[in-house]
Amino acid sequence: MLQPDRYFDPDPQARAIALDLYAGIKDLPLVCPHGHVDPALFADPDYRFGNPTDLILRPDHYLLRMLYSQGIPYERLLGAGDPREPWRIFASHFHLFLATPSGMWLVHSLETVFGVTEKLGAGTADAIYDHIEAQLALPTHSPRALFERFNVAVLSTTDAATDTLAQHRAIHASGWNGRIIPTFRPDGVVNLQAANWRGNIENLSKVSRIDVGDFASFIRALEQRRADFKSLGATATDSGVFSPAAEPLSLQETESIFSRALKGNIAADDASRFTRHMLFELARMSADDGLVMQLHPGSLRGYNSEIISKFGPDRGFDIPVATEFTRSLHPLLERFGNHPNFSLILFTLDETTYSRELAPLAGAYPSVKLGPPWWFYDSWNGIRRFFDQVMETAGVFNTAGFNDDTRAFTSIPARHDLWRRASTNWLAGLVARHMIDQSDAEMLAREMAVGLAQRAYRL
Amino acid sequence: MLQPDRYFDPDPQARAIALDLYAGIKDLPLVCPHGHVDPALFADPDYRFGNPTDLILRPDHYLLRMLYSQGIPYERLLGAGDPREPWRIFASHFHLFLATPSGMWLVHSLETVFGVTEKLGAGTADAIYDHIEAQLALPTHSPRALFERFNVAVLSTTDAATDTLAQHRAIHASGWNGRIIPTFRPDGVVNLQAANWRGNIENLSKVSRIDVGDFASFIRALEQRRADFKSLGATATDSGVFSPAAEPLSLQETESIFSRALKGNIAADDASRFTRHMLFELARMSADDGLVMQLHPGSLRGYNSEIISKFGPDRGFDIPVATEFTRSLHPLLERFGNHPNFSLILFTLDETTYSRELAPLAGAYPSVKLGPPWWFYDSWNGIRRFFDQVMETAGVFNTAGFNDDTRAFTSIPARHDLWRRASTNWLAGLVARHMIDQSDAEMLAREMAVGLAQRAYRL
Amino acid sequence: MLQPDRYFDPDPQARAIALDLYAGIKDLPLVCPHGHVDPALFADPDYRFGNPTDLILRPDHYLLRMLYSQGIPYERLLGAGDPREPWRIFASHFHLFLATPSGMWLVHSLETVFGVTEKLGAGTADAIYDHIEAQLALPTHSPRALFERFNVAVLSTTDAATDTLAQHRAIHASGWNGRIIPTFRPDGVVNLQAANWRGNIENLSKVSRIDVGDFASFIRALEQRRADFKSLGATATDSGVFSPAAEPLSLQETESIFSRALKGNIAADDASRFTRHMLFELARMSADDGLVMQLHPGSLRGYNSEIISKFGPDRGFDIPVATEFTRSLHPLLERFGNHPNFSLILFTLDETTYSRELAPLAGAYPSVKLGPPWWFYDSWNGIRRFFDQVMETAGVFNTAGFNDDTRAFTSIPARHDLWRRASTNWLAGLVARHMIDQSDAEMLAREMAVGLAQRAYRL
Repeated sequence: MLQPDRYFDPDPQARAIALDLYAGIKDLPLVCPHGHVDPALFADPDYRFGNPTDLILRPDHYLLRMLYSQGIPYERLLGAGDPREPWRIFASHFHLFLATPSGMWLVHSLETVFGVTEKLGAGTADAIYDHIEAQLALPTHSPRALFERFNVAVLSTTDAATDTLAQHRAIHASGWNGRIIPTFRPDGVVNLQAANWRGNIENLSKVSRIDVGDFASFIRALEQRRADFKSLGATATDSGVFSPAAEPLSLQETESIFSRALKGNIAADDASRFTRHMLFELARMSADDGLVMQLHPGSLRGYNSEIISKFGPDRGFDIPVATEFTRSLHPLLERFGNHPNFSLILFTLDETTYSRELAPLAGAYPSVKLGPPWWFYDSWNGIRRFFDQVMETAGVFNTAGFNDDTRAFTSIPARHDLWRRASTNWLAGLVARHMIDQSDAEMLAREMAVGLAQRAYRL
Repeated sequence: MLQPDRYFDPDPQARAIALDLYAGIKDLPLVCPHGHVDPALFADPDYRFGNPTDLILRPDHYLLRMLYSQGIPYERLLGAGDPREPWRIFASHFHLFLATPSGMWLVHSLETVFGVTEKLGAGTADAIYDHIEAQLALPTHSPRALFERFNVAVLSTTDAATDTLAQHRAIHASGWNGRIIPTFRPDGVVNLQAANWRGNIENLSKVSRIDVGDFASFIRALEQRRADFKSLGATATDSGVFSPAAEPLSLQETESIFSRALKGNIAADDASRFTRHMLFELARMSADDGLVMQLHPGSLRGYNSEIISKFGPDRGFDIPVATEFTRSLHPLLERFGNHPNFSLILFTLDETTYSRELAPLAGAYPSVKLGPPWWFYDSWNGIRRFFDQVMETAGVFNTAGFNDDTRAFTSIPARHDLWRRASTNWLAGLVARHMIDQSDAEMLAREMAVGLAQRAYRL
Repeated sequence: MLQPDRYFDPDPQARAIALDLYAGIKDLPLVCPHGHVDPALFADPDYRFGNPTDLILRPDHYLLRMLYSQGIPYERLLGAGDPREPWRIFASHFHLFLATPSGMWLVHSLETVFGVTEKLGAGTADAIYDHIEAQLALPTHSPRALFERFNVAVLSTTDAATDTLAQHRAIHASGWNGRIIPTFRPDGVVNLQAANWRGNIENLSKVSRIDVGDFASFIRALEQRRADFKSLGATATDSGVFSPAAEPLSLQETESIFSRALKGNIAADDASRFTRHMLFELARMSADDGLVMQLHPGSLRGYNSEIISKFGPDRGFDIPVATEFTRSLHPLLERFGNHPNFSLILFTLDETTYSRELAPLAGAYPSVKLGPPWWFYDSWNGIRRFFDQVMETAGVFNTAGFNDDTRAFTSIPARHDLWRRASTNWLAGLVARHMIDQSDAEMLAREMAVGLAQRAYRL
């Protein structure tokens, strides 16, 4: 059973303050400005999730990689056959997730979404499986019904630049009033080494109805697609790059690299130079059209080629590297950093940059905000370290509130709950230390739950 | 109203110990061995601070950059016109400073220096402005009167190598017995890319009465100036370099670079090579004349060229970068690290170096001490992280106590108060955990408040 | 006097939970899978430790370097003459060790091993010296007697690849049933720049009875020696490298570098290329013979050449540098990371890699486990940071439990006690926050004390 005062620091005085602050914000709507939920879930009013294994276990690379790390072959988790088998393996290894955010989210989701209060384990695996599966068949557990029950104010998906946005159009056309908006993600056409780049460019031509035959038409097609995304409610873009380095090339250089790429024979550093240029170009577009620019750099993706070739990407083998922002972003910020229409939200997998680079940048540039802790760091201690290392320098108002950043729709309330508890716990510590007063803490708690995200993403 | 137990951890037992330790040291004199207060404040007994905007807001780049980061143009903060206007903007945005050290220092200064106990905000801006302005006109609020009220034992300023030290001489000549001493800062002549380097060299010639025409005379002039500084009480030097790398060049190379620099045509890496050599040379001078050497590396200064060209330096756009000490300092420490007369105090903007590089160096070399958390890190959590990451390896006695490092004279007591609370809070945690006993904690509290700084700076 | 609730966080509720968890594991046997105790101590049943100075002070570079850092010449600590003199210096400077792990270990060892409950200081130095010296002469304080009193289940030493293992054989032959096992450490033959590399190769030939005349015979000799180590109980190897980078060379390249090395004329980057290849090769051998591979990278050794030339290595002048694992280990993990028989335990002196690189790797690869905090970080706060930054991502079960990693035999119980208190304190914090329940905490406490280390090291 979930305890009402769970997660809060144990000191009775601080805990009482935290409980009080949390009570004031726990029922605020969920603002979800960045994530990976499939819009198809909401296009069809009668959509139903499948079984617990396909809903909870298989799409979650946090869970899969932990099981693999303890010697369970991916074949046993992902193979054909009764989906109940992988669930049993998962349940009997649930101790692996003790003290991890995955474990905490799961316990929360099971209880609040499905009413499961027993501990997951070998002995309860089947009963819990049956219970969840039965619920998933009910209209009360359709995506739209859960969206409403979860009190989601807005949910942003992440969509390739080449996406037709058909699902988004279908949601609009259906008359349902859930607010679901796309986010423009151009990685597949901006990164010359993306899988099937040439095919992506063809798709871009098709969906934009602009024949992308050179760099100039490429840029026009991107701009046209951004306008499409905006027309369906988008307020932001997202770039998942290896390095945040941005540096403009001459028009001639970009044309020549792009032309080599179309011919399929790029030179050694063409891809990284082109990406650096495109970050600059995307910033220019954001200053023009007002879409907020998000950067998610710093992961060496596809690290374990054997696992990826057998089981595909997103299997837990994207490993972070040290990341540099100060010098890397300098050309971009020199050009657009003071622009009144430009807004850049930065994320990192290198926590050393919180206090050293990101907080000083966000604490000075009107265009720069810090996204919440990302990926592994969206955890109780990860969030605590973020507050500890960022807030004194950047100030609360230069952060961008919370992102759940998940493809696991049923885990969204759990993630917001953890964030809201972490933020009110942090504020309670400040009140207990007389660093801020109760009324300021109440205001900040609302901002951290809802207001900062709404404003940072222009929602 | 400031609470007597503010900042301390909320556990009642630990808090009681902290309060007790704090009571034992809170009234000790303030030792201020590194800072940027203008000595002119003390040269004239009748000096008066102007209005609150010019005293508190405008010289403080922490405050200005935070307002700018939230979209308030520098023009509105720094422009001509009624200084009450920027104050109103500041007051109505005081929520931006919640949970920041700037906010905490300000609340403390307003209450203890000016008797202001209302919260700063749009509604109180004018009344507080008037109240402070009236007090600033009184003899009780002259710099000298505040110096005495603050119980400052010694205040060290930071002065260019080319400074005539006229203000320091005037203080001495005035017969006032406040101890104010200069610190030798040679950046403007040692960094070949410093603004107006050639002019600085001419000034060095003038003030030293040594014609600086080659490297040998340059060194003689520096040595002569160090002797001048010592004669006015200086015990330390300070170098604000980009990198802490030190590496000697041959005499021939230094002569040839210096000669190129005088002619205004330095080669690509001349400046960085010269700075590396000069760090080595300055260490040699310190071993000779006993002035303690301070290093403040790791900031990419002048990051936002538009703001700097319009409003000058120190507007919040000095952004840290990753810094390396182990290899960088090796040549210098190989030569001077075991020298009985050499002392080097290291500061960092890269907190990852605390536990990895700086604490191991300070915990082994008799010549190396660690300065307190610098710049953004001179905050409640920044200090806590420093204690956490440094003390177990370096030991308390290899740290250099506290520096307020400020140009804001009226904030000095607030900064020492925060440090003294942070250090007694840390010691109380150790006592509550039975890691040290009460009598050791009392001794360490006095050391951290006064003793360590006095000895590290040879005061 | 040691307090029963020492080290635990002061909150009464959390402390009570911690005390309870600790009570359940404090008497479990000590598993010591990595350390530097001399096996000679146990080969002779009548071995006696000398005097307190030679037992406690002189072999401990943590203590020596701290005294040196405060200006006490090594000559006074290590010179000939009455060993009581260095002890007096140490005792009268014991305040330098307040709040350091060295201080805490010493207090614990003095009380639990020797029954000393007074504070060490100038006034008690002689009496404590006499008391310890008298005890050391008794059969109750022989190494074997202490081994049994300490309840050591297994103690692993660290032995050069060229070691005859005569002491280990003597222990086996003596019929004593203390389990003491060797660890294979090939640094002296794998690092071409090791002191006396040529001599080490000759010794390798001698002890392996394989004439090492080329790279192929070198590999055969290493494999043969690994088999020797295994026959005496070894389950692991250890490599102390500067960089963790591993990268295979062609057979031709390795032969040609090895041949140059035998002739004493290696090229500029031969040594680092050879080490990178050998890490790869050692991983291959581990996958073959099942010896667990340990990596201890990241220290710039022999930093202070003056001290080292006068007083030898291990005098506190091994200074860490920033270390990179993600890219460095990629080739090795691509080849062996999914191998069912391969196991790699990683250590670091760069704490930034905990959350960024090491926890993600350990949380995904079945072959990778994280060793406990190493060297300076084997401290109350170092361990706390490790738990904080590693556990949420890697999961508890991908860590390797505790290593005492010491040559100071009498400090072993103190180190395990600190770890056991730190781990139960951490678990109590989770229970008090309702993140895990009491029964899970009890299970994890046993794992962290004993089970994880046993399994990670295949004991």
